[in-house]
Amino acid sequence: MSELRQNLITRDWVIIATDRAKRPDQFANPKQLVAGLPPHRPDCPFCVGNEEDGTLETFRLCDRTGWKVRAIRNKYPALSPTTERMRISSGIHRTMSGIGVHEVIVEHPRHDLTTALLSIEDVANILLAYRQRYSEIRKYPHIETIIIFKNHGESAGTSLEHPHSQIAATPVVPSQVRSRIDEAIRYFDDTGDCLFCRTLEDELAAGERVIFESKHFVAFIPYAALSPFHIWIFPRRHSSSFDDITDPEITDLAYTLKTVLAKLYYGLNNPDYNYNIRSVPTTEQGTKYFHWYVAIIPRVSKQAGFELGSGMFINTGLPEESAEFLRSIVIPTSKDLG
Amino acid sequence: MSELRQNLITRDWVIIATDRAKRPDQFANPKQLVAGLPPHRPDCPFCVGNEEDGTLETFRLCDRTGWKVRAIRNKYPALSPTTERMRISSGIHRTMSGIGVHEVIVEHPRHDLTTALLSIEDVANILLAYRQRYSEIRKYPHIETIIIFKNHGESAGTSLEHPHSQIAATPVVPSQVRSRIDEAIRYFDDTGDCLFCRTLEDELAAGERVIFESKHFVAFIPYAALSPFHIWIFPRRHSSSFDDITDPEITDLAYTLKTVLAKLYYGLNNPDYNYNIRSVPTTEQGTKYFHWYVAIIPRVSKQAGFELGSGMFINTGLPEESAEFLRSIVIPTSKDLG
Repeated sequence: MSELRQNLITRDWVIIATDRAKRPDQFANPKQLVAGLPPHRPDCPFCVGNEEDGTLETFRLCDRTGWKVRAIRNKYPALSPTTERMRISSGIHRTMSGIGVHEVIVEHPRHDLTTALLSIEDVANILLAYRQRYSEIRKYPHIETIIIFKNHGESAGTSLEHPHSQIAATPVVPSQVRSRIDEAIRYFDDTGDCLFCRTLEDELAAGERVIFESKHFVAFIPYAALSPFHIWIFPRRHSSSFDDITDPEITDLAYTLKTVLAKLYYGLNNPDYNYNIRSVPTTEQGTKYFHWYVAIIPRVSKQAGFELGSGMFINTGLPEESAEFLRSIVIPTSKDLG
Repeated sequence: MSELRQNLITRDWVIIATDRAKRPDQFANPKQLVAGLPPHRPDCPFCVGNEEDGTLETFRLCDRTGWKVRAIRNKYPALSPTTERMRISSGIHRTMSGIGVHEVIVEHPRHDLTTALLSIEDVANILLAYRQRYSEIRKYPHIETIIIFKNHGESAGTSLEHPHSQIAATPVVPSQVRSRIDEAIRYFDDTGDCLFCRTLEDELAAGERVIFESKHFVAFIPYAALSPFHIWIFPRRHSSSFDDITDPEITDLAYTLKTVLAKLYYGLNNPDYNYNIRSVPTTEQGTKYFHWYVAIIPRVSKQAGFELGSGMFINTGLPEESAEFLRSIVIPTSKDLG
């Protein structure tokens, strides 16, 4: 018998296909673990020595050996800050000029690494770049929503090998974001509590879907996870926007994110995945009803006609079993790796 | 400069990436057109002669030569009608038993055909099966929403070659469906008109996004199409639910659907796609504010972290250019095909 579960934060209903649930390890990537990439490629625009002339660079974090992380304006941006703001309503059509920001974060000088294999310090550098860019971009005119995201692997929407992530700022609040905020406000008005804080409390009390806990963060599979190994990382401290993160929290999130991604890497054989960091719209900074968080979506299943036609999901992994599986994955230490 | 467009029916914002838009033919499937499937496979459960014992069959349309279309209960259903209804609210968790219906429509006895290559009569038979099953399933207890959908090809979520589609009935109204209905009601309350009828009127007046018109149906690419070649087929007559379709409309929809899918088949080299038929929830049958329609989503682009993290979309095809391209595709007649 299958079971329907509703995620109160997204209000999505999910069919948890308990009858035909797969074992967690059946979601592992059938491809080989090590893709055998070179540490440097002469034709990669993100590799050391191949940097563009610098006019696109917006941020650079360096040590004595050179840059560690860079932020650059996307050469082919979906949204651009130099566009003039124009909004037209004509009949039922709403149109707006593509004003906004679209930057790329080059995460590491090495071509062949991925977050799961980086040091905590390296991951913290990426998060520092995110915070710096988020804080800066928030000051640009006409920005409403800032999304930080990463596409890892071809089925997650990237063909670029060099480790990178992106930051996009839109001049509208997407309707999906708006409706989730409306739900969070309704819950706050009803109870006086943040729905996300309450969810975290419940997940910690239940324990069975928690994957990893650190001082400031908790990684868990939501009760109504939309897809197998769909993971949320929540900060324990209530805060509505990522750029409010403190330095000790950055280090701790680096530790948490690296650990969770390494568990996916070793447990599911380096699956393709996306992650994104969701914050409240910039004009609502500092609210009590919204809580920023990281969502990780391994691409181990496909949306088909049912999902596209209903907005509901069928999850063939049991959240409790998936969490238990990831808890059990031991990350090899550098010594084990030789 | 890119442009943002809002789809008023879904309220989704889409970034139309005019700057980096691809030419329509660049979305063509790089694989070969003819997959070279055999007309019959001894190991295919949907092929003639391999039918299961018949206890799963719910509908069969025959002529003197045998069955033309069959409906069978899914052997591994996501939702089942024999489940007892149970709904539990515990804290912030909402759970419900997996009551509902999940059937497969075997579209044709031949293993190697696809809708684009079928005769209009064959496609009409599939639609007749849809109507019969929709009408029957609507009478089952606890059904709220019925979705008819098809997954064509691996990236659309199927690994079964034999032409088939599915019908699923859920015991809840999915939140995405609910929020679209709320929008449609708001528009109806504001104007006294059906938002879908109004959209159709506007698209016919503009003309540039229309792909194909028949007596009872219009196929067009929405102004704010979420992805390249995202197509809607609207009935001209206002009706909120698919099972209200008349016999002449069935024949005409078969003609329209076949034509549009054949244009995709020949124009884009048999791309993978999903289609779904959206109706109002069963308990709201006969409303003035909702209009049933067919949505076709060719899988020529991928959702990545931006889409997953914002609910917005980036479309690298211009709706007007995509429509012009499909209008220009001539479908070979059987004589041309030899």
